[in-house]
Order: sequence, then C-alpha cells, then structure tokens
Amino acid sequence: MNVAIVGLGLIGGSFALSQKLNFPSFKRFGVDNNPEHEKKALRLGIIENVLKDGQISEMDVVVVSIPVDKSAQVIQDILNQVHSKALVIDMGSTKGLLCEAIAKHPKRDQFLAAHPIAGTEFSGPEAAFASLFEDKTMIFCDVEATRPELHKRAKALVEPLHMKLKYMTARGHDKHLAYVSHLSHISSFMLGRTVLQMEQNDKTIFDLAGSGFASTVRLAKSNPVTWTAIFKENREEVAQALEGYIENLKVFKRQLEIENYSDIHQQLAEVNSLKPILNGILNK
Amino acid sequence: MNVAIVGLGLIGGSFALSQKLNFPSFKRFGVDNNPEHEKKALRLGIIENVLKDGQISEMDVVVVSIPVDKSAQVIQDILNQVHSKALVIDMGSTKGLLCEAIAKHPKRDQFLAAHPIAGTEFSGPEAAFASLFEDKTMIFCDVEATRPELHKRAKALVEPLHMKLKYMTARGHDKHLAYVSHLSHISSFMLGRTVLQMEQNDKTIFDLAGSGFASTVRLAKSNPVTWTAIFKENREEVAQALEGYIENLKVFKRQLEIENYSDIHQQLAEVNSLKPILNGILNK
Repeated sequence: MNVAIVGLGLIGGSFALSQKLNFPSFKRFGVDNNPEHEKKALRLGIIENVLKDGQISEMDVVVVSIPVDKSAQVIQDILNQVHSKALVIDMGSTKGLLCEAIAKHPKRDQFLAAHPIAGTEFSGPEAAFASLFEDKTMIFCDVEATRPELHKRAKALVEPLHMKLKYMTARGHDKHLAYVSHLSHISSFMLGRTVLQMEQNDKTIFDLAGSGFASTVRLAKSNPVTWTAIFKENREEVAQALEGYIENLKVFKRQLEIENYSDIHQQLAEVNSLKPILNGILNK
Repeated sequence: MNVAIVGLGLIGGSFALSQKLNFPSFKRFGVDNNPEHEKKALRLGIIENVLKDGQISEMDVVVVSIPVDKSAQVIQDILNQVHSKALVIDMGSTKGLLCEAIAKHPKRDQFLAAHPIAGTEFSGPEAAFASLFEDKTMIFCDVEATRPELHKRAKALVEPLHMKLKYMTARGHDKHLAYVSHLSHISSFMLGRTVLQMEQNDKTIFDLAGSGFASTVRLAKSNPVTWTAIFKENREEVAQALEGYIENLKVFKRQLEIENYSDIHQQLAEVNSLKPILNGILNK
C-alpha cells in the first residue's frame, strides 16, 4: 500500500509515524510546501520518499494536513489525479467550507473528512510523534458521502491507535469545535497579548508568572499560520463563540464594578462543575 | 520555635509541611475556620496541635493564608495578641488594601506582606505538599516597613526552599498580579462558563475537547471562595486588566468580521514572542 502525506507538520508527521509503527509494509511518501520540512521528514524517518509530480496517481491513501484555508483547492487537485480506488483523507481542524467546496466533485465518495482531536502547541515535522493520536477522539464528518469500503479502510488505518470514533456533520463539527477548541486558542492568544502590552519587561512576566499563567497561555505558542487559517475557515461560528465569551467577560466586569460578589462567587462555583469533565480529559 | 499556621488550605498547609521537613525542631500549630480542615491537617501531620484561644501570644511566627478579604481584620487581631518579637507573615494573593489597613498598627514592623507565586488548582489541606514552593518566586512587599531582624527571620524560613526573592511595593504587586495571575483565572472561568452555556451535554465537551481546552480551562477548577476574595480585594486593577483583555478580544472579533487575516496573523505571531518566557516558566 502506498500512502502519501500532504503537509508534513505535527499532524501529518505524527500520522505518518503511527503508520510506520503499525503498518511497516506500507510505503510512505510525503510532500510539503516547505522544502526544509521534506528534508527533516526524510531525516527523521517520517517518510521514505518525497512525493514527485505525477506520483499521486500511484497512491492508495492520501492524507492531507495543511493550513485549512488551502485544503479545498489542494484536495480537489488530488481527487482529480488519484486512481479510482484511492482514499483521500483530510485531517484539518475545520470541515464545513471544505465539504461544501467538494460536494459535487465526481470523486467525492473517495474522500473522508476527518479530524483527530489531538495536538500540542508545537509544529513542524520535528514536533511529530507516533503516539499523538493514541486513545484520542477521531471525528469522521458527513461519512454517508464516503464510499463504504473506503470508510472501512480509514477505520482500519486508525484501528491500532485505539481512537474513539465520533460521527458528526461537517457543520455540526465546526460549531462544536468553535467552542471547545478555537475559542480556547483565541482566549489564550489575547491573554498573552494583553499581558505583553502591559508588561514591557519580559523578565517581570517571567519572574511573576506561575504555572497558572503558563497553562492558560500555553496555546499562544501555537502556529500563527495554522490558526489564522482555522479562524478564517470557521469565521462565523468562531465569531459567535467569541461574542458569547466577550459578553460573559463584560457581565463579570460589571459585577465587579457594582461589587456583586455573591453573584461572582455563584458563577465561579457553577463553572467548577467542569471539574470531573476536565479531570477526565486530562486522564484520556 | 513555635509556628502557627492560620488557614490550613493549599498554601498554609504546604508551608507547614515545608517547615516540618526543613526545621523539624519547630512546633507547628494550626487553626482554620473549618473544623474539618483542622482534623485533616492533624491526621496528615501538617500540624502537631490545633492553636487554642489565647495561645497566639506564645507563637514566634504566625503565617496567615486565608481568603484575602478576611486578612486585614484577622491580621490586626493577631498583631494585637503576639509578643513583641513575633513575626506575622501574610501569604495571600493581594497586598494593597491589606497593607493600607494595617499601616498605622503599632506593631506594623512585626508584619511582612509576602506572596509565594505557587499554587495548583486544588485546595484544602489534602492538596498541600512540602515542595510546592521549591524554586518558585517569593515576593516580599513594602519590606522597609518590617523590622530588619524579622525580615531576616522570614528569609531564613524560606531559605531551604531556594525561592527567588523579589521586592515590590504592595500596590505594584497588585497591579502586576492582576495581569499575570488574576486575569488568567477570569479568562479561564469565563471560557468554562461560555462552553457550558453552549454545550448542554457534558459528554460532548468530554468527547470533543482536547488537551488544549483542558489547559486553558484548568484554572476554572480553582476555589470560588479564594478567588472571589482576590477579585474583590484587587477590584480596580483586575477591572482594568479585564478592560484591556475585552478590548483585545473585540478588536480580534472585528478583524475576523472584516476578514483582515493579515492583521490577525500578525497579532498571533507577535504573541508567539512569549514562547521563551513560557518555556522558562514551565521549566522553573
């Protein structure tokens, strides 16, 4: 089986390594816009070969993991070239616009919109590791549009990773992810921005900040290209989630100004109900 | 040496355990509003004795770690009772109003306003551990108001913990901490609130949320009583930090609405400059 990884970053690279571990007979090809990523991926053994022009027609599985605002075009190009039994999987963080864009493609049934809920704040092939997806959630979207035997093949590819499979519509996916993932990144980036504006002296931040600050701002280390593309592709849902977040912050600030501490206490106590969920996520 | 711990939660309990480890000859007394905390602290060996009425006059060191909106009154009561060579240390997260409230106390020079930058999202004596403060930053505020030999004694007490000592004014402390700590907690609590409002089904959050969400919302597990008191005591600085944060979020939302992605990208890239600082904090 020939597998191509298009985009050799954290997600694509980690998927390639998981395949190397679990399916040693597969031949792994890779391609990236950035030639340095290709070199590093070869050197790290993430791929065996750089995918050459025209070679895409020889692939049995093509996994795409690139900035999501580029996915629709790249996936249409790939679908145009693959043979009739090949499976094309997208692993990006947004799905709605992509699935709309390729809805009428004659090879739509060879495509699967997937999203592994896994990642770190690091990026590039040097951040990839084989167990990134192990025991995590994998979302398959609009799966009725995928040819059943190719859906089955996709399940077989992730089966050794013991992922928890969830099925959603592409639109539903984007709505939920705006809240549980995209909004977290904005809150983190903007918290970092606010502190940088206030603290001219990096050393002050370093000396005074504890693990709590580091935890809330961890996602602000994420890749700006990846995340600008995600916010762009999921613009409407993200704006709506952000609206709700800003509203909650304004209410909190108002209550602080009028010194309504019983209400503040009640709000904080209510959010504490997330504890068991969060403990569960951390132990996932 | 007799040491009393007033407030047997995470901070007071951890300080008591660090003293047990490093100064085994000290006698450790403790008191807490909550009788369950006293029982647990005895059972866990955090303290040897519950501090009885009238016994405060026999203490050489009194460490106060209680909700910060109660500190000013409790510390004045303690100062009224301690002998003339005793040291009283407050370890709460806000300092401005407290230092103002006791500025004219006849025993002001026996008091030290301290803040160890250390904590977890857990609370109560069962969360306490001896190494919580090791290698962390310790802030001493308005130290010129403390009698020099008592300042020296305080330094000796934390010396085995290899803490990095920083000196600040009480007001300066509150201003900086509003940004690098208090704001993080609000962003985290309100992010949790926003997601809970949207996701009626806890299981959806659990299934879809990854480590990124867990990291940004970790602080939302913090104790509501502790944090309501901190927001109350540092109301003005917190409101100002919150104002800046809300403004940044609104600008971000506006840029998303007008699809100004180059500006969004630039903002995210700028915040990436926090990377080395954050890596440093995590390795502290």
